[in-house]
Amino acid sequence: MSDYKHPLKDAEFILNELVQFDQLCADAGIDDVNSELASVILTEAGKLGSGVLAPLNVVGDLNHPTLGENGVQQTEGFSEAYREYLEGGWATLTADEAYGGQNLPNVLGTAVNEVWQSANISFALCPLLSQGAIESISHHGSDSLKENFLTKLVSGEWTGTMNLTESDAGTDLAAVKTKAVPNGDHYLITGQKIFITWGDHQMTDNIVHLVLARLPGAPAGVKGISLFIVPKFLLDENGNPAERNDAYAVSLEHKLGIHGSPTCVMSFGDNGGAIGYLVGEENNGLAYMFTMMNHARQGVGLQGLAVSEAAYQHALQYAKDRIQGSNRDGSRYPIIRFPDVRRMLMQMKSGTEAMRALCLVAAAEADRGNQSRVDLLTPIVKGWVTEFAQELTSLGVQVHGGMGFIEETGAAQFYRDARILTIYEGTTGIQALDLVGRKTLVNGGESLGALLDEMSADITRFEALGGQFTLAAQQCRTSLDNGIAARQWLLDSKEDKSAAGSSSVNFMMLFGYLCGGWLMAKSAMQAQAQLDAGASDSEFLQSKLVTAQFFCEHMMTRTQSCLASVVAGSDSIMALDEEQF
Amino acid sequence: MSDYKHPLKDAEFILNELVQFDQLCADAGIDDVNSELASVILTEAGKLGSGVLAPLNVVGDLNHPTLGENGVQQTEGFSEAYREYLEGGWATLTADEAYGGQNLPNVLGTAVNEVWQSANISFALCPLLSQGAIESISHHGSDSLKENFLTKLVSGEWTGTMNLTESDAGTDLAAVKTKAVPNGDHYLITGQKIFITWGDHQMTDNIVHLVLARLPGAPAGVKGISLFIVPKFLLDENGNPAERNDAYAVSLEHKLGIHGSPTCVMSFGDNGGAIGYLVGEENNGLAYMFTMMNHARQGVGLQGLAVSEAAYQHALQYAKDRIQGSNRDGSRYPIIRFPDVRRMLMQMKSGTEAMRALCLVAAAEADRGNQSRVDLLTPIVKGWVTEFAQELTSLGVQVHGGMGFIEETGAAQFYRDARILTIYEGTTGIQALDLVGRKTLVNGGESLGALLDEMSADITRFEALGGQFTLAAQQCRTSLDNGIAARQWLLDSKEDKSAAGSSSVNFMMLFGYLCGGWLMAKSAMQAQAQLDAGASDSEFLQSKLVTAQFFCEHMMTRTQSCLASVVAGSDSIMALDEEQF
Repeated sequence: MSDYKHPLKDAEFILNELVQFDQLCADAGIDDVNSELASVILTEAGKLGSGVLAPLNVVGDLNHPTLGENGVQQTEGFSEAYREYLEGGWATLTADEAYGGQNLPNVLGTAVNEVWQSANISFALCPLLSQGAIESISHHGSDSLKENFLTKLVSGEWTGTMNLTESDAGTDLAAVKTKAVPNGDHYLITGQKIFITWGDHQMTDNIVHLVLARLPGAPAGVKGISLFIVPKFLLDENGNPAERNDAYAVSLEHKLGIHGSPTCVMSFGDNGGAIGYLVGEENNGLAYMFTMMNHARQGVGLQGLAVSEAAYQHALQYAKDRIQGSNRDGSRYPIIRFPDVRRMLMQMKSGTEAMRALCLVAAAEADRGNQSRVDLLTPIVKGWVTEFAQELTSLGVQVHGGMGFIEETGAAQFYRDARILTIYEGTTGIQALDLVGRKTLVNGGESLGALLDEMSADITRFEALGGQFTLAAQQCRTSLDNGIAARQWLLDSKEDKSAAGSSSVNFMMLFGYLCGGWLMAKSAMQAQAQLDAGASDSEFLQSKLVTAQFFCEHMMTRTQSCLASVVAGSDSIMALDEEQF
Repeated sequence: MSDYKHPLKDAEFILNELVQFDQLCADAGIDDVNSELASVILTEAGKLGSGVLAPLNVVGDLNHPTLGENGVQQTEGFSEAYREYLEGGWATLTADEAYGGQNLPNVLGTAVNEVWQSANISFALCPLLSQGAIESISHHGSDSLKENFLTKLVSGEWTGTMNLTESDAGTDLAAVKTKAVPNGDHYLITGQKIFITWGDHQMTDNIVHLVLARLPGAPAGVKGISLFIVPKFLLDENGNPAERNDAYAVSLEHKLGIHGSPTCVMSFGDNGGAIGYLVGEENNGLAYMFTMMNHARQGVGLQGLAVSEAAYQHALQYAKDRIQGSNRDGSRYPIIRFPDVRRMLMQMKSGTEAMRALCLVAAAEADRGNQSRVDLLTPIVKGWVTEFAQELTSLGVQVHGGMGFIEETGAAQFYRDARILTIYEGTTGIQALDLVGRKTLVNGGESLGALLDEMSADITRFEALGGQFTLAAQQCRTSLDNGIAARQWLLDSKEDKSAAGSSSVNFMMLFGYLCGGWLMAKSAMQAQAQLDAGASDSEFLQSKLVTAQFFCEHMMTRTQSCLASVVAGSDSIMALDEEQF
């Protein structure tokens, strides 16, 4: 039995104080949804997470899915857990009512998803991928595709996959080679895709593969890619799975982590061609793919938060239990009293709270229809949160000392599982390039400027708080100035064509720590206001004050080094000949 | 067949230009040893590393040692490799001639050890631990112990282990419970030790365990610990292994990495008591343990360099081979041309070169008998290099993209293997506490002050270089000022008893980046001087200039964030009650 427990209070605090959840629901015209309902839903999610999914986390790590004659057999217990997940109505939470969804806000769905991802990231990947397929078909599919596939995806009766990568086409999708040939009312797909998460399993009657492929005579590069639905089983006249389609998992990867999630090589058309249906228009697949991808990118950022939270809880318990220090009188105490252990725990605690604030605030911007802010924050959520998660899960190992290196302890699994997060759904480098390019340079820095202005107003209020926040507010102001300077440097450096690329990751990390500190400062102000108003839960609120103070004083200060690296530019990065490496 | 290749040129450059190896040998009165001989030795070591040890690295990862009726059976191939290692005379390199050693300088032994650790860290742990036993017996053992055990340890005919940790006594050795009872000319040892690296194997006829235990009536705490030699086989009258001693490996750990190295639970005295021999005086074991430990700590720092170098070479090869970018005309190119991939490779390249410089400079201080400098640098070598190695081996995974997460690629093994380095032989927290406490506060900051003065003089020369180094020199000066400020803050903060502990890791990391940048700046000056003098190997030297520039501009700048965190102090780290976490 795992000890994972969803941090409900912090989720509620962020929903109420940073997201203004009730106002958000009212503005969206869904008056029957409010923060009380959100708490009930999160409480129930927490029970399923702790009781069902978390205990399967180590089971999946030790007992990988296997590939046999009937395809991929998932880890024992996963199918029953998926059944419980469906029966609880969890799959339909945020989907459109027209297709059987519950139409709840995206931010609430995001808060709930944290539970699944913390409890069992390998399991939770399956609905995460389905969600991408849902988004894509909702926005771009014809009515008949929606009728045939969307309702079953929304209900979770079937799952979805994203088939983009090929062995020669990873980050560079221009190189996709999979072929689609028109054949009556459908297309015949042939080709091989790699790294297909939950590409096959026996948990559902059907699987809906979304596949990027190239039509005969299509333009070269990314402008010649189309998107197809390729179901595992073709549908009969009643829309039920019937004949097996020519789409098979042909091998499974042996990975560093997320062992419970089958990562498949998928082969399409080995026996004449897999039947596929065009989504939207020909040669427009890349744009549709981004519809899947953008949602998935915020989802992966959330995984970074979720695995860090799980690692934190694990490390915290150990730090409270592990007796190691000796007083002069021979009495002994737990390692949480060592200042450096507290430093590590505070990094983890404040880091996960800052990540959670950013993930939920970004998710709420989608509910508010603030698309330019969503676009701006998505690469920061995906890039910064997942990079930061590497450090926090590593600290989770470190707090355990020698026991952290022993697999049975469990800390190493979070560390291994987390390692994929900076890679899939677009590497950190791709997120950073997105931030400096499409999200900043393309609009002359306007959307970043608007965010910085908003931060400045909040930080001015924070400065007025004084007291224990004097230094924290100074660090906020310095970090804001660092963000302003980085933006200006980028806008001024257009003539160096390597400038944006070589500075991009430091640029993105700077804005990650800045966003985190800004939202922690806002949290401190809200907590202080509640305390001043005599709120009852003073222990949580006092703890929020300290955690915010720590983040601004010790984590946000990293913006300084990021800025120094950004403005050092590309000279020494690009100077070597390839042979000199 | 692995592609690992020892970076001979860089080792030679550091030995000649930073360590002044010829002068060091002359000063030590060993005129027959010089840089030419060093190059020959390193070249031969490189052959054994690439040809024999590196190909076994993945073999050990996949085929763990096993525990059977005859004890631990090491991975197939390791025994033959160990035989080759002995036949090459590698075990005796730096040991005293009186015991069959070759009396070569410690810095040369260190440079050679990098090869073993890069090629196969699991294998190389075995001689590393033997070296600790050799140090301890050399300094503290009686003549008869030396006669019986030292020569065989030096020759490598037997191996050595360090038995410190117990399940309730890790960092806190005061809690050691293993008992030693006098029994004629020896002692009977009973107790259990955990995390014993290479605690058992079949590669040699005997194993010499060094064991910390407590005598009857010994004082409580660390002042009541004594050190014993407990051989696996007792010796007959001719000094040959005879009767089996009551000391057995009873289980093996299932670890995140270094799978080829058996990590044993050792049980002493299950059948009446293991026969042990006291080393030195009673109750003085902790001091003797530090004799083993200090050498081992520099050795573990070197492992951080070594695994980072191996990860770098692996990532570099992939970056040159992996075709992924497309030009507008459809032609394609390798990912090493992407600015962000170059940024990662430059971090790895400059990072390993800075680590190597620090490891060898610190090792040479031991040859020069500059004990206070050795004492000061040891926690930085162990702490900073191994922490930095976490980042560099993680970048090694990242450069590979999705393939990095697939175990067969090999990048993940370096990442997993590296994870133990910040934990064993004293965690990062322990190193940092050593640096701020015994190495700084205890001497009023004197030895750190002397190092800062030496750096300042070098940086003044670096500032005079100008040209491409203008910004790099500014960053050196800023970083030096950060180091000066951190030292002063520490000295001024004695009244806050949590100040040193809570700031210690940031303090140590600051000095790590500062030392690295300082030595890279010195390297740049030496390389420039050689180029000005018309040196032939201009490609290597030009590359060193760029690498030094990059390190100072992009890595050393991290001292800023470290200082900001140090001077923020302990307030927000210590403020929470334990229940508020």
